[in-house]
Amino acid sequence: MSVAVKRAEKTIAVSEIFGPTIQGEGALIGKPTVFVRTGGCDYRCQRCDTLYAVLPEYKGDWKPMSATEIFAEIQRLSKQTPILVTLSGGNPAMQPLEALIDLGHEAGYTFTIETQGSIAQPWFAKLDYLTLSPKAPGMGNPWPTNWERLDRCLQYARQGEKQPAICLKIVIFDEVDYAYAKELAARYPEVPLYLQVGNHTPPHVSNTIDTAGLLERLDWLIQRVTEDRWYTVTVLPQLHVLLWGNKRGV
Amino acid sequence: MSVAVKRAEKTIAVSEIFGPTIQGEGALIGKPTVFVRTGGCDYRCQRCDTLYAVLPEYKGDWKPMSATEIFAEIQRLSKQTPILVTLSGGNPAMQPLEALIDLGHEAGYTFTIETQGSIAQPWFAKLDYLTLSPKAPGMGNPWPTNWERLDRCLQYARQGEKQPAICLKIVIFDEVDYAYAKELAARYPEVPLYLQVGNHTPPHVSNTIDTAGLLERLDWLIQRVTEDRWYTVTVLPQLHVLLWGNKRGV
Ligand code: SF4
Ligand code: SF4
Repeated sequence: MSVAVKRAEKTIAVSEIFGPTIQGEGALIGKPTVFVRTGGCDYRCQRCDTLYAVLPEYKGDWKPMSATEIFAEIQRLSKQTPILVTLSGGNPAMQPLEALIDLGHEAGYTFTIETQGSIAQPWFAKLDYLTLSPKAPGMGNPWPTNWERLDRCLQYARQGEKQPAICLKIVIFDEVDYAYAKELAARYPEVPLYLQVGNHTPPHVSNTIDTAGLLERLDWLIQRVTEDRWYTVTVLPQLHVLLWGNKRGV
Repeated sequence: MSVAVKRAEKTIAVSEIFGPTIQGEGALIGKPTVFVRTGGCDYRCQRCDTLYAVLPEYKGDWKPMSATEIFAEIQRLSKQTPILVTLSGGNPAMQPLEALIDLGHEAGYTFTIETQGSIAQPWFAKLDYLTLSPKAPGMGNPWPTNWERLDRCLQYARQGEKQPAICLKIVIFDEVDYAYAKELAARYPEVPLYLQVGNHTPPHVSNTIDTAGLLERLDWLIQRVTEDRWYTVTVLPQLHVLLWGNKRGV
């Protein structure tokens, strides 16, 4: 049995695979993509908007799938046409995703991952894009950022030939989060930083979205950044929240 | 008198200079920027959202300014801190903007222009970013696209050392516009293309914005693109319209 086949047989915990839709946030905003959401997370953020891919009580909903099975589903959804695949979670860095990336690349697909930066994987170097989104205090994650681990994520991503496009993304609710983002920018001045207005009404808090409130805080964040003469940052909302609220699978 | 000073003395028709705010659309969405809106346009689009920078009856509101004067105002607004400057209109390609770009570059500022591609200027090669947004039929521009002129815009932009990042942007209202965008993609397969949902309630039609209608059409456009397996395109709304409606100077 070849090494490739062995790798493909490791199973990945999958919460959902859906799309194509557009990426609603960050550096790839507006790009058509298929999402692979893995199950399981080493964090417990109070404002998490995907608790169904985090908490153990949902484990029964997660399907153990091989890379081959996942890629077959991606191909079916994308009608065999290469597309950007977004690896999300939960924390997708907990899963053995290298074989999936290899399989997809062979067929012309590209890969981006979104992870909080608490677990570094050597296969980050194979990605086309890497978004690290460490959690500011406002997300309600009980653990402070482990900077060594975040450093290691960057190191691993940069150690190959490919050099994925790396960016940092911080969800902002208030001034405390803003100060955290500034600290991050000072630590990693060479990495493009995206600020995102947080959703204060995630699914487990409310069925509906406070669109006016979201836009108001986006307005605040834009003013905050420009008053500060912080012109190297990018400020974005979550398009999918504005478009589809808390609906899943879109 | 040096050549540089002579150039700086040509006057530019300015409708407004404002910011910093964020770029609300296209490839630079979310980036802090100062806008310089020039007065005058060779087109007459029925759905134009900046008629005050197009129609001759507003000429009295446009201020003739030198590059030095404009750059002084940009520096004041940005508090002497380098920022992205967005040259917009009207059609900014009608104006002698080379000296302004030179002045700004010396101080670390970067420049992007947004023009419909009907007038090519040699100084396009000096820009950091160039957005060409030829008008699809839905904009209600009475003249068909002059492809030769659009080609020339690309040629001029590519002839220097700098190689600005070039993209195409099409405002989409309906199926006819969508077909136009597809034609454009076929003509320029190497240029990143952005599709933008058109504002069907521009200032001269309505004081308020039909946000629900805009989001509905964004949803339609995303479905249209993904059903078509058109995965190389980017689909975006106009953030500033969602945020601030038809308000000027934000
Ligand atoms: S890190 Fe992300 S997925 Fe995990 S609990 Fe926090 S918000 Fe949810
Ligand atoms: S080209 Fe642009 S500025 Fe000129 S009339 Fe058309 S929409 Fe307005």
